[in-house]
Amino acid sequence: MIANDPYAELERRFGRMSAVNRAGAILNWDRSTMMPDGASDDRADQLATLGVISHEMMVAPDMPDLLSRAEEGKATLDAWRAANLREMRHSWTHANALPSDLVEARTLASSACEMAWREAKKNNDFKSLLPTLGEVLKIVREVAAAKSRALGLSHYDALLDEYEPGGRSARVDALFADLGAALPGLLGRVMERQRGGPPPLPLDGPFPVEAQRRLGEEMLRVIGFDFNHGRLDVSAHPFTGGTADDVRITTRYDEEDFARALMGVLHECGHGLYEAGLPRDWRRQPVGNARGMVLHESQSLLMEMQACRGRDFIDFAAPRMRAAFGKSGPAWSADNIHRVYTRVTPGFIRVDADEVTYPLHIVLRYRLERAMLAGDLALADLPGAWNDGMKELLGIVPPTDTLGCLQDIHWPDGAIGYFPTYTMGALAAAQLFAAAKKAVPGLLASIGKGDFAPLLGWLRANVHGKGSLATTDEILAQATGAPLGTAAFKAHLESRYLSA
Amino acid sequence: MIANDPYAELERRFGRMSAVNRAGAILNWDRSTMMPDGASDDRADQLATLGVISHEMMVAPDMPDLLSRAEEGKATLDAWRAANLREMRHSWTHANALPSDLVEARTLASSACEMAWREAKKNNDFKSLLPTLGEVLKIVREVAAAKSRALGLSHYDALLDEYEPGGRSARVDALFADLGAALPGLLGRVMERQRGGPPPLPLDGPFPVEAQRRLGEEMLRVIGFDFNHGRLDVSAHPFTGGTADDVRITTRYDEEDFARALMGVLHECGHGLYEAGLPRDWRRQPVGNARGMVLHESQSLLMEMQACRGRDFIDFAAPRMRAAFGKSGPAWSADNIHRVYTRVTPGFIRVDADEVTYPLHIVLRYRLERAMLAGDLALADLPGAWNDGMKELLGIVPPTDTLGCLQDIHWPDGAIGYFPTYTMGALAAAQLFAAAKKAVPGLLASIGKGDFAPLLGWLRANVHGKGSLATTDEILAQATGAPLGTAAFKAHLESRYLSA
Repeated sequence: MIANDPYAELERRFGRMSAVNRAGAILNWDRSTMMPDGASDDRADQLATLGVISHEMMVAPDMPDLLSRAEEGKATLDAWRAANLREMRHSWTHANALPSDLVEARTLASSACEMAWREAKKNNDFKSLLPTLGEVLKIVREVAAAKSRALGLSHYDALLDEYEPGGRSARVDALFADLGAALPGLLGRVMERQRGGPPPLPLDGPFPVEAQRRLGEEMLRVIGFDFNHGRLDVSAHPFTGGTADDVRITTRYDEEDFARALMGVLHECGHGLYEAGLPRDWRRQPVGNARGMVLHESQSLLMEMQACRGRDFIDFAAPRMRAAFGKSGPAWSADNIHRVYTRVTPGFIRVDADEVTYPLHIVLRYRLERAMLAGDLALADLPGAWNDGMKELLGIVPPTDTLGCLQDIHWPDGAIGYFPTYTMGALAAAQLFAAAKKAVPGLLASIGKGDFAPLLGWLRANVHGKGSLATTDEILAQATGAPLGTAAFKAHLESRYLSA
Repeated sequence: MIANDPYAELERRFGRMSAVNRAGAILNWDRSTMMPDGASDDRADQLATLGVISHEMMVAPDMPDLLSRAEEGKATLDAWRAANLREMRHSWTHANALPSDLVEARTLASSACEMAWREAKKNNDFKSLLPTLGEVLKIVREVAAAKSRALGLSHYDALLDEYEPGGRSARVDALFADLGAALPGLLGRVMERQRGGPPPLPLDGPFPVEAQRRLGEEMLRVIGFDFNHGRLDVSAHPFTGGTADDVRITTRYDEEDFARALMGVLHECGHGLYEAGLPRDWRRQPVGNARGMVLHESQSLLMEMQACRGRDFIDFAAPRMRAAFGKSGPAWSADNIHRVYTRVTPGFIRVDADEVTYPLHIVLRYRLERAMLAGDLALADLPGAWNDGMKELLGIVPPTDTLGCLQDIHWPDGAIGYFPTYTMGALAAAQLFAAAKKAVPGLLASIGKGDFAPLLGWLRANVHGKGSLATTDEILAQATGAPLGTAAFKAHLESRYLSA
């Protein structure tokens, strides 16, 4: 086909790929929330087909020519279109780097390993995972090598770049060296301070699921979640899916512990607000997608950790929690609820970790996955290295691999290069929230009254509405005056856990 | 591309189209059940894109060559593959008959007309519908002309053939002439007989939605609906969607009238069991699809009208209805419930009609849509023709067009040729149920014990499992000894409403 306007033709094609991918996002959500178990093969076939169709559109033989010709005319494009073209090239480079048999081999190997991992985790049997995990690692190395050639990046960076475009291990190294040096000491001081007082009173249930759901929906509305463009449902593993116009948040309810589900909903709400705030005119083009996993995680953590575990929000929420569950008494004071929500306890499990210890879990995983990818750590030695790292960073050693190196699905799933984005997101969250407080007078007071509009307005203007117009660091620098760093995060921890 | 085995290449392509279409089916279900309103444009874009992709695969430039070459080698194919190839050719012929601008014009015109129809119906303002309905009719005529050329059929038959492959108006004329002659008299006798006794006692509510839902699910399980491969949800207009492996049934609940929702669920269950029983090895190929709308409707009506409004099932269900709603007394006897479920009343609204009067509604629509397509009935004259037909066939005249020619969405939606399949389905249902009773000793007694396995087994073997291997008439002839006719249906009505 002859495209007289190569850029316009690219927009048409990427718009179509976006529609296919958005259809897949809804089908993925359905799989985790609504689909009966017996339909899993049928659904896998649908999703695989949509994936192949989208991939084939991306690597169509005339794409390199279209991209090059559009790039020659780049001077005529406005800022959004120029950035869109840059993002098109970036996603094309990632997709085109991999021969289709390698893509298929990766899918097959990670499926097989994921199944083996479920058993290995259940039976605390790391050795049984070795064959399939070894195969996954071998294929991920091939993927890394292929992407390294295409992108001109190191192997690890070529993987990281897929989750966080522009993310580089040199930056991660520096950030994590800083955290690895500062956090263990800070953790010790927090623990000592906590030991100086009585533990928080427990929030006793049971908490009926329906009451939890209503409270969660009430809080979502308070924060600004638009139920005309989204839903809240239940899934085994909470996530945010769907599309920018149709945000599907999920949670799970524990009748003995409402606090975790509620904070989980607020966390996913942060993801959902990012999606819902993506630039309206561009959300069906690459430049209108979320920037990357760092900013995505920053939005969930800003909402959960920075805003909603803060005292101002708890003051607003406490009476609503009491009303939701018909509770009263000292355990249900805002003061006690706040102490429950800011309790720090080193533990074995990452997803249960508080915000002080969480980065140490990530530092460990980052070190180990880099060593594994480089071949400096044999898989058979992973459990020992894991336990040594836990001892060093958190001062505790898991009694089993189930509570240790078998806890996460990421490596069996072939996701190497993903873990650091969690903690980079936490750093970005602290940095953005500090900047928002400075830029918007009375921000915390508004949150204390249940008015999130000032915060949301600032986030829309400074993060959400930018989509992928600029890099993560550029967006952060424009919004906060500096690229990603550790200072705001460390200051936040000092302030919340060690002052006053 | 060069395909050494053209049939195998066609299977690959039609399998891929099937996956795209199945994905679309789930997204359509989601749109009616789960999707927030604000996502409608986003979803429309996804569905339109999947539709275009599927259509483009179908009308790919090399398809005629692939089909011809596969047909040359047809002698080497087994029965399923030969039938599959025939179905491929048939669906290709339909798709390829229409230039893409006509497809798009039809979509746009029917969307616009559907919106105008909602207003016109609300305001009893037929005149306001004339411009958009005229446009729809004009485009449907062009579609009919194009398909007529491609298929070598009359204009009306070319439209009918899309809903019921092989369906021909000559057959419909004969069947409907018979019904049009027999039913008004039969209706008169039924009404006279009903007038001879007291009306059934009303089943007074309210009936909480949750209790209705539980009862519906219990009855679905009794009949054999597999919740490992399906769901029951709520939508404004009940339908059966999803895929053969993932059947999505919907209903709506009225707290004042459980009886309609329950029979609606059983009706959709019949559709769902047909889908779930399609041949396992072929359900992702054309030959494994449901045969057509006649057999589809036969399965829902067999379940609802033949089996579940029969006295045996009501005897089984009555105590379960009483338990579900905590009811007792004479209104809740099986005898009275059966009388409620078999009450005949000529009315204005097709979807509320009983099985005696329903075909007369269809005969009217069939006559009118043929006349409109042929240009023998001007749109402006439709209300008058409608009312004359109601007077002739049912003896009543609707006081408004809202209760008359504005009641159905089909024509505004551009669906001409669909209506007759409802009544042909009712005829097929009666014919199949009569044959099943003959072939399976004790069938009604089993149903009376809530054991649907004998009926379902017979339907699986004789209808569901055949997919599109043979024509509707061949499937009926193999199962019942005769092609589609009116005898079993008339005998059923005589037996249920005029004997004993």
